[in-house]
Amino acid sequence: MLKQRWFMRSLSTILPRAPLSKQILKSEPTAELLEKLCFFKKTQSGIFHMLPAGMKTTDKFIGIIQDKLQTNNDASLVSLSSLSPKSLWQTTDRWANSELFKLKDSKKNEYCLVATCEEDITELMKSFITSYKDMPALVYQVGKKYRDELRPRSGLLRAREFIMMDAYSFASDESDATRMFEDVNKTFLEIFQELKIPVVRAYADSGDIGGDQSIEYHLPLIGGESTILSCNNDSCKHVATDEKALSYPVEEGQFTGDVCVKYGLSEDHTTLVCYYYPKGRQINWNLAKLSVDDDIDSSLRDCSNQEITDLFQKENEDMMFTKVLRVMDSRINSRSNFPDFPLKSYLKNNFGQIDGVSIVTATDGEICGQCNEGTLVSTKSIEVAHTFNLDTKYSKPLSLKFMDRENNSTRLVKMGCYGIGVTRVIASIAELTRDIHGLRWPVAIAPWSVSIVSTPQGKNSETDKNYGKIVSLFKNKDPKLASNIMTNLNRTASMGTNISLSHSIGIPLTIIVGNKSWPRVEIEVRGRRWSGTDICKWEEEYPHLKEEYQWEVNNASPIDPYHEKHIVLHKHVVDVVKLLLQDL
Amino acid sequence: MLKQRWFMRSLSTILPRAPLSKQILKSEPTAELLEKLCFFKKTQSGIFHMLPAGMKTTDKFIGIIQDKLQTNNDASLVSLSSLSPKSLWQTTDRWANSELFKLKDSKKNEYCLVATCEEDITELMKSFITSYKDMPALVYQVGKKYRDELRPRSGLLRAREFIMMDAYSFASDESDATRMFEDVNKTFLEIFQELKIPVVRAYADSGDIGGDQSIEYHLPLIGGESTILSCNNDSCKHVATDEKALSYPVEEGQFTGDVCVKYGLSEDHTTLVCYYYPKGRQINWNLAKLSVDDDIDSSLRDCSNQEITDLFQKENEDMMFTKVLRVMDSRINSRSNFPDFPLKSYLKNNFGQIDGVSIVTATDGEICGQCNEGTLVSTKSIEVAHTFNLDTKYSKPLSLKFMDRENNSTRLVKMGCYGIGVTRVIASIAELTRDIHGLRWPVAIAPWSVSIVSTPQGKNSETDKNYGKIVSLFKNKDPKLASNIMTNLNRTASMGTNISLSHSIGIPLTIIVGNKSWPRVEIEVRGRRWSGTDICKWEEEYPHLKEEYQWEVNNASPIDPYHEKHIVLHKHVVDVVKLLLQDL
Repeated sequence: MLKQRWFMRSLSTILPRAPLSKQILKSEPTAELLEKLCFFKKTQSGIFHMLPAGMKTTDKFIGIIQDKLQTNNDASLVSLSSLSPKSLWQTTDRWANSELFKLKDSKKNEYCLVATCEEDITELMKSFITSYKDMPALVYQVGKKYRDELRPRSGLLRAREFIMMDAYSFASDESDATRMFEDVNKTFLEIFQELKIPVVRAYADSGDIGGDQSIEYHLPLIGGESTILSCNNDSCKHVATDEKALSYPVEEGQFTGDVCVKYGLSEDHTTLVCYYYPKGRQINWNLAKLSVDDDIDSSLRDCSNQEITDLFQKENEDMMFTKVLRVMDSRINSRSNFPDFPLKSYLKNNFGQIDGVSIVTATDGEICGQCNEGTLVSTKSIEVAHTFNLDTKYSKPLSLKFMDRENNSTRLVKMGCYGIGVTRVIASIAELTRDIHGLRWPVAIAPWSVSIVSTPQGKNSETDKNYGKIVSLFKNKDPKLASNIMTNLNRTASMGTNISLSHSIGIPLTIIVGNKSWPRVEIEVRGRRWSGTDICKWEEEYPHLKEEYQWEVNNASPIDPYHEKHIVLHKHVVDVVKLLLQDL
Repeated sequence: MLKQRWFMRSLSTILPRAPLSKQILKSEPTAELLEKLCFFKKTQSGIFHMLPAGMKTTDKFIGIIQDKLQTNNDASLVSLSSLSPKSLWQTTDRWANSELFKLKDSKKNEYCLVATCEEDITELMKSFITSYKDMPALVYQVGKKYRDELRPRSGLLRAREFIMMDAYSFASDESDATRMFEDVNKTFLEIFQELKIPVVRAYADSGDIGGDQSIEYHLPLIGGESTILSCNNDSCKHVATDEKALSYPVEEGQFTGDVCVKYGLSEDHTTLVCYYYPKGRQINWNLAKLSVDDDIDSSLRDCSNQEITDLFQKENEDMMFTKVLRVMDSRINSRSNFPDFPLKSYLKNNFGQIDGVSIVTATDGEICGQCNEGTLVSTKSIEVAHTFNLDTKYSKPLSLKFMDRENNSTRLVKMGCYGIGVTRVIASIAELTRDIHGLRWPVAIAPWSVSIVSTPQGKNSETDKNYGKIVSLFKNKDPKLASNIMTNLNRTASMGTNISLSHSIGIPLTIIVGNKSWPRVEIEVRGRRWSGTDICKWEEEYPHLKEEYQWEVNNASPIDPYHEKHIVLHKHVVDVVKLLLQDL
């Protein structure tokens, strides 16, 4: 008896019991919608409990990641401690990071809660990598990460505790390192393709993590925090983040307004670098750095112009031995309105100038700096994954070395690191796919693939029997699919309530067992057909279904999504469901 | 090419490459052995990274737990945040616990890293349980827990970061609560039976967690930290922890030596309770409490006798209105040597006395207090799981209430909580099953079920081909089993090295593909036959194997474990392996 009640209740205890109002479905921010639909529950700013529906979605995504990494890249699964000792982070000079959660144990040892694990994995692999024979190797883990964001926002998009997949590669030379970097990036693309979402790869800045080569994965999204720039030239198609994208104006030297300047010092502090660019544009540090062949002291990046010139004059007593390098953004010309030069005394002969470079953040409509032909198109997006070719950035300070094949000397291991923001991907997909009826998951990560709804239990014994018949059909014909079916949304509520609930939770297909339509049942398509395959194809491929089969498509209004219904004899329901799921 | 090298290497990168010495296998503590065999890696005192072999073992165990809880108890999986706010723990009066890891975020909010989640789950379920209709419900999670033990020891047996499965039940009345408690306990027993390990259930004290009813699961183990007492009377068989077990002496009142006394005060502090018991025995607070019907102030439990009598005299100005209650352990008699009575002035008339009770920790050979017939047998053990019938211990302070069915009033939810120390179970099984050849896992949680070893790759092309043939046989006949086979221990090392490696890692079966024995292969049984089934049975059940089949058992020496070998035609290898695995 108790068992019976459990079957009826336990899952639906942590699911909505009644449909949300149209107003909430339409205008509630996605983070709140996910909470109202019982996927996650916020406990503190940026901190969440994961509820059963959210767990199912997350576990499915993690399953896809693991499967791909193991099959394609033979990756080894580990799970590093969440408590990382201060000493490791001091060695790589990252302990000062104010976003680390820090704590002391009862013996006053200091730790941080892991934000990323480059330090820990490098230290760990010292026990396992000693010879070139031990490489290449790829190690990964999936687990909670912590970042004490000052302004956590948008729910799981920018949380303080979140789930991340982080992988680390180890190679003995650059060509192996690059091949592993490319292989893992290939797998990342396959992972996102499995979700049938339009993820874009962009060349990116490697930021705080380090390394020379870096690729970000972006989900295009109106209102996204990031901007990516794509070249519309089909033979180029270069995509980069706005931190990395190089662009040129449609016509050079056309800017005649006020010019801004940003000062910097060369690495030896004997050259004052003056970056001139149009007012109203944003200087791009990566491009600025590139324009002087990286000969710039990046630690002074955030200093004011006054601080830079003071430092320059203080460190160089004799101005005779200094230089001034003027870097001119290609948008400006000599007739532009330049600011005053800051130094009182200087030697004209020591002036140098670089012209025709681009040092400002690219904008929509400018010329692609990669092919010099196409036009850049700017798109708002969310970053969902990031890969880094780290070279020896961590193996050097932490001394991860191996015995060489050729000359029996020790060399530093070449590393790469690769991250997928698991909960972030889920939150972005929710954001991307939601519509006025609620969420709309791809089958690959939907908490349930199918729901079966009917009239309230106990109201019509014939319908109850038919409902049981459909459930049994799935259990007998495809037990794995059957375990992905939601059969107990709210069996005491009306059919309409349950259809709305199923739609709002975002279950891709709803099977409706009604008393009038029997022996036919309706299958409502809620999921989105990303591939654009037309259902007619199924009828052609499976002619035995055609006779007894009917489908309808309504496009009720411009804001109402595509409505698709399949009416099939109950004995075909499993086959049709399986066909439909392939494309959702 | 790279792929090929990965297949060869990546797994074995984080596995031992050479067998450990006999000395290490024999005498290294199990915690160090698990580390040397690359299951876990200690990073700090009580803190560990989990390596691929340890991950596989852990994941298999978690899979069994999830499967059983979902199938038997329809439990819902959640994952609560690891950061629990101070305010919750203050409400239940548990924040002072010195074993909590505590931290502050950048806004000075305080958190602990979760040690258990009664507070968080109770708070969470307030959003979901409002009516009797929402219950019964069972919610569980599996994840990292934190306890800042002052003296972490024995590796994963007493770690500061560890993996735990914690489940929580919610019921509207006592009978449902008790039924859920019993149902989950039944599932726990099934989980341990699946591992084929001899786990014992013992009635236990509920300690800091609280509640009236509590059952612990113990793995009997020489050198274990706990002691359980089992009644040898077949119609009783009562088992309890030494904190809970009630025992009587074989003959009462036979103790004539020095008597110890422990003082306490009744809850209203007007009665001085004097517990008298034999010197050399340990007073058992649970029994002492029970002997006075719980009318004792437990908060004074750790006060000295002097402190108790001082407090008694200070709080009671007129001794006329006080009482003295003498509780006599049944082992002592009036001729025993009693200590002096502590009070100067007292009234003889106000003395009471309780005789014939047992208030000391039970010992081996005493009479079972449950049946009053059997003899208690004491066993050293490790506690691996604990269940609590909590009643309203947490729902009361945190106000988890529901609307009653009968009279539309609100009532407190009856809770239960249930924990399995996942990493602790794994460490205890390693401790229990290890022998002079290394670890010896039950199939259910072995990192790999089978290993296939042969001569070094490239040495004999015929053997290499046969090796490939055996691997393919498994892949074709049973892909799931094939994914549980270790095929790349160290393919450049000798066959003997790999057999030793496989034995020490504790893989239950080793298939040896040699050049002499072909077309037969040898299957070495490393796993332990807990059920004692004789292999002959298989031959009877599967006569088609009998003709071409041969088996040997050697028991080399008293300390050397049972050696069992099966020599079979290669075409039968999958069948025989599957039969053998059933019993390991």
